[in-house]
Amino acid sequence: MPRITAEIVTIGVELLKGSVLNTNARFLGKELTESGFQIEAQVTCGDSLAAIEECLALALARADLIILSGGLGPTPDDVTREAVAQFFKMPLVFSKSQFASIQKHYRRHGFKSIPDQVRKEAFYPENAVPLLNRFGIALGFYVRCGNRLIVVLPGVPSELEKMYHNEVRPLLKRFFKKMVKRPALVAKTVGMSEPEVMQRLGKDFFKEPFDFGIYPETGEVSLRMYAERTGVLQRLKSKIKKRLKPALYALEDVTLAEKVGQLLARKKHTVAAAESCTGGQLAAEITRIPGASRYFKGGVTAYDNAVKESFGVGRALLKTKGAVSKETAAALACGAREVMRADYGLGITGIAGPTGGSSKKPVGLVFIALSSARGTQVRKYLFWGDRSQVQAKASKKALELLWRRLRGVS
Amino acid sequence: MPRITAEIVTIGVELLKGSVLNTNARFLGKELTESGFQIEAQVTCGDSLAAIEECLALALARADLIILSGGLGPTPDDVTREAVAQFFKMPLVFSKSQFASIQKHYRRHGFKSIPDQVRKEAFYPENAVPLLNRFGIALGFYVRCGNRLIVVLPGVPSELEKMYHNEVRPLLKRFFKKMVKRPALVAKTVGMSEPEVMQRLGKDFFKEPFDFGIYPETGEVSLRMYAERTGVLQRLKSKIKKRLKPALYALEDVTLAEKVGQLLARKKHTVAAAESCTGGQLAAEITRIPGASRYFKGGVTAYDNAVKESFGVGRALLKTKGAVSKETAAALACGAREVMRADYGLGITGIAGPTGGSSKKPVGLVFIALSSARGTQVRKYLFWGDRSQVQAKASKKALELLWRRLRGVS
Repeated sequence: MPRITAEIVTIGVELLKGSVLNTNARFLGKELTESGFQIEAQVTCGDSLAAIEECLALALARADLIILSGGLGPTPDDVTREAVAQFFKMPLVFSKSQFASIQKHYRRHGFKSIPDQVRKEAFYPENAVPLLNRFGIALGFYVRCGNRLIVVLPGVPSELEKMYHNEVRPLLKRFFKKMVKRPALVAKTVGMSEPEVMQRLGKDFFKEPFDFGIYPETGEVSLRMYAERTGVLQRLKSKIKKRLKPALYALEDVTLAEKVGQLLARKKHTVAAAESCTGGQLAAEITRIPGASRYFKGGVTAYDNAVKESFGVGRALLKTKGAVSKETAAALACGAREVMRADYGLGITGIAGPTGGSSKKPVGLVFIALSSARGTQVRKYLFWGDRSQVQAKASKKALELLWRRLRGVS
Repeated sequence: MPRITAEIVTIGVELLKGSVLNTNARFLGKELTESGFQIEAQVTCGDSLAAIEECLALALARADLIILSGGLGPTPDDVTREAVAQFFKMPLVFSKSQFASIQKHYRRHGFKSIPDQVRKEAFYPENAVPLLNRFGIALGFYVRCGNRLIVVLPGVPSELEKMYHNEVRPLLKRFFKKMVKRPALVAKTVGMSEPEVMQRLGKDFFKEPFDFGIYPETGEVSLRMYAERTGVLQRLKSKIKKRLKPALYALEDVTLAEKVGQLLARKKHTVAAAESCTGGQLAAEITRIPGASRYFKGGVTAYDNAVKESFGVGRALLKTKGAVSKETAAALACGAREVMRADYGLGITGIAGPTGGSSKKPVGLVFIALSSARGTQVRKYLFWGDRSQVQAKASKKALELLWRRLRGVS
């Protein structure tokens, strides 16, 4: 069955110039993929009538659904509604209900009258159907064009996201009745490289037809598969379970920090961290998860040696073995566990760079220790990359060590 | 003078499907804009020969410089080098030096031999000139096409960024000799909203012709201005200095954490942090800056109340005032300063959500304290947004308080 295709057009010079990150394209890509659309392209163009019209013409030639976002603001450089109207040779008309909604919005924020230029926000092309925006002042709208649909949304991410959920998703369900949502399979692995994952999956993994994506990201590799039939995914799933077992931490879309949190919460265990070179990143990753207070006791960023000392790392040890050593990592992990009365203690010490490295202890050298009632294990790593990569890889590796202990593999 | 134009083509279904955020498009957009290019469009397409060839044809019709990124990996779904070769009807040839570099990379990471499929990484189209990648295994390359230039880079952001700086920027300087780099002016402000910044700048700020961008981001507003003549920027600069003074922390492209670090290092002062609801994010932001060990003593993430207690927050205080209170924030800041023997102590406590809020202490309520030899100040905030937004805003606000103290304004 041919798939229903979509194209995403994001509008704004701030996107072209890289002044802001294009989170709307990502949001729409993810949502439309989940709903079963095949995304043909994502295009970003500037705020000009000609550029928007050109993008619209191109998109109409290759996609069933086109979502445009951005360029609906009140300032003169916002011309998306004008471009769409001009493309269809249609005049702009005034929406009374949107104007009332704008008035309400301004009153709620303590304004007595609406600035003149904001009146513009209540206009839409005559062949369009307005999509009310309850979360801001820019009106959205859609245009039917034969069997194709053009949806125009404001560029402010929070408004776009809410309008998508409230207005656009129901519209798409009504318009594209034949839409087939393809079942998806997600697999998340840690501690295995992309080539290694591919090698373990083997050639016969790919003998049945399905859509496959492999995404490496800081110590992890994620797999995403879509197939027309559920049977195919079932077979893939059982192969993945067997072949990627040492690295597989989830068959759903969760992060490693979430997974570790789930395991800790289920076992009613707690963890504490003592970090040097990662400088708080491990604690920040753990506490980004809602409900982390159930299992995270706390963390210490022991940057200064005096702070390491006050945290159970003996001065003699620091002198003889050095701050970056197996022994210091172990002392940090034990210190974290004991001082904060946690079941598990994680200790990280290393050289994140760019300076501070030597031939014996180069930039990227990191010791990570995990301490529990069963004892303390320390691992040595040589991470490759710049400061931020070394920090990110070390934090991830610490989570991986804890995950392995919790799942009972190592 | 007509501007030299550029188009950015990012390749990968993971981008179309929204599985990863397109940071490469942003990086390239920013860099090329700084170098004086006018970005015409950014296009993302999937990993298919036809799609890549179509994008290349379109881009060649409208831009002088085309940068393609992604799809150079070792897996079979990576077809960018094949698509470029096919577009120019050229065969792929083998690069001995890139192969040697790949061998070195694998040996350094403890592998004895190179996986078969990785050999693919050393091939490039015959009409191309290879761009060595010292930071990974994917080869980059460029193709001259009359007065146009096509540059192809790997999709891994860290590799792309380093190759851009080391290889591409010098190449662009050689190739586009007539490039006029427009002088730019950057202004970074914190603690002022976008409308407030605009109001303070006033209408007369915009009377001369120049290119203006305003970009709000977590508690900050950045301004970026380009003009043909330096005189215009000089006048804008002196207006910005006067009108945005209470919020202006830099007239160059540095982060607030970098600026605070510079001020601390210059004064030979140190700081320590005790965080509750931000869970280590403040420490992580400070230690992300190279050389932070000069001025950052350390941090504590005091999640559990027992950890808060061991850190100088009295049990009685926690009982009578609660963990989220003015008094606890002050005790955290003083504790951080005293225990870690720092000149400044920052303390943060609040409710990041999504749960844990009440009518008296709602989600978003955060107390931030700054302690020094001169005493301790505490501020109360009600941040708006989800958990990650509340955490990010609170970390930023703590840095802002320290910046204000260091610049001597408050």
